[in-house]
Amino acid sequence: MSSHHIVRDDQEPALIIANGESCNRELLNQLLEWSPLVVVLDSAVDRVLELGIKIDVLIGDFDRGFDYNRYKELQYPIEIIKIEDQNSTDLDKAYNYLIEKGIPAVNVVWATGRRMDHTFTNLTNMVKYAGQLKVVLLDDYSKVFLLPKHYKKWYPAGTTISLIPIGHVENIYTENLDYPLCNESLTLGFRTGSSNAVTKDGTVSIRYEKGYLLMMECND
Amino acid sequence: MSSHHIVRDDQEPALIIANGESCNRELLNQLLEWSPLVVVLDSAVDRVLELGIKIDVLIGDFDRGFDYNRYKELQYPIEIIKIEDQNSTDLDKAYNYLIEKGIPAVNVVWATGRRMDHTFTNLTNMVKYAGQLKVVLLDDYSKVFLLPKHYKKWYPAGTTISLIPIGHVENIYTENLDYPLCNESLTLGFRTGSSNAVTKDGTVSIRYEKGYLLMMECND
Repeated sequence: MSSHHIVRDDQEPALIIANGESCNRELLNQLLEWSPLVVVLDSAVDRVLELGIKIDVLIGDFDRGFDYNRYKELQYPIEIIKIEDQNSTDLDKAYNYLIEKGIPAVNVVWATGRRMDHTFTNLTNMVKYAGQLKVVLLDDYSKVFLLPKHYKKWYPAGTTISLIPIGHVENIYTENLDYPLCNESLTLGFRTGSSNAVTKDGTVSIRYEKGYLLMMECND
Repeated sequence: MSSHHIVRDDQEPALIIANGESCNRELLNQLLEWSPLVVVLDSAVDRVLELGIKIDVLIGDFDRGFDYNRYKELQYPIEIIKIEDQNSTDLDKAYNYLIEKGIPAVNVVWATGRRMDHTFTNLTNMVKYAGQLKVVLLDDYSKVFLLPKHYKKWYPAGTTISLIPIGHVENIYTENLDYPLCNESLTLGFRTGSSNAVTKDGTVSIRYEKGYLLMMECND
């Protein structure tokens, strides 16, 4: 069992374990180690319990027959939140819960794989929370987050960086990428910045003015 | 070895085997059985050969050291097309090859899974070929294609249907779905039509006026 429930520091991101494909245990352990709060979505709960992970919050619409008491005993203390809202996904419900709690950042795992409609929706709906919640979605091959309008970070030369517009993004400028963008636009489906790369060890700078630009750092 | 290379009918869709995660063999065999032309992308070639599949066309930039003669002998006759163009993916290269050949439709497998930047780009870039090439992308859990502006098809009650806008889609009307749309808009990241369902056995009708709307038929 992880010790994350002992270390409580609201400056560290919370962790949401969604109900897509499981990630490797090493990634999960790294994220658990620093997470002050572990939120699990609905039907993932049994898979998470099998791994011996302490759950702080369980969120979902629980539209299957759902035995609250069983989980309350297994995971005491646990907060179980039933939200019936057909217009939001379980992941949306968890984001809104964190925003209401004043938690500023979250890592999300198990949100990709298998069904493409879920994967696609989970990858894109983080833009809706821009300015309210900093979301980083991780799986075994990818780290995905919404770029702020001005972004600077040190990367080693050769790192693959993909810039994916959610819709249309304008006035993009980059520094230290092999395929530089200078006041250019990207449009999903037509022109994206997939598989760019860092030119030399050092700071990569990306800025843009209009729209929502996802960063995908991927490896395989 | 499949018999697809005996049955040649350009009315049936070609098949592209891309270089993402492999699908199950049953799906692959079904698609091979009717396909008049099998196109394989670059680094997938060795995995495809291991399965004993006859390759008609091999396309890529072959930026690794690549021994043409080896594949020419193994797969005679085979067309090997080297295209160096850093602005298009190998999948784009294959689409353009089919369009030049006058082939109207293609199924695509192994285009999803693992790296999210590749998955995301492959799922969305089919909209660029609207009106030129009918693309259907399939994996073990999903069938994805661009909806024509007027779409009608018979589905059994309860079938899950996800309508995913690539950007912004306006003036959407649906019939025979549990969450009907009547002159409504969908915007990727903010409001999508994920996880809708067919109300009763019968024809589902979807029409829209502006933008690009993907249909995702998914199961798990």
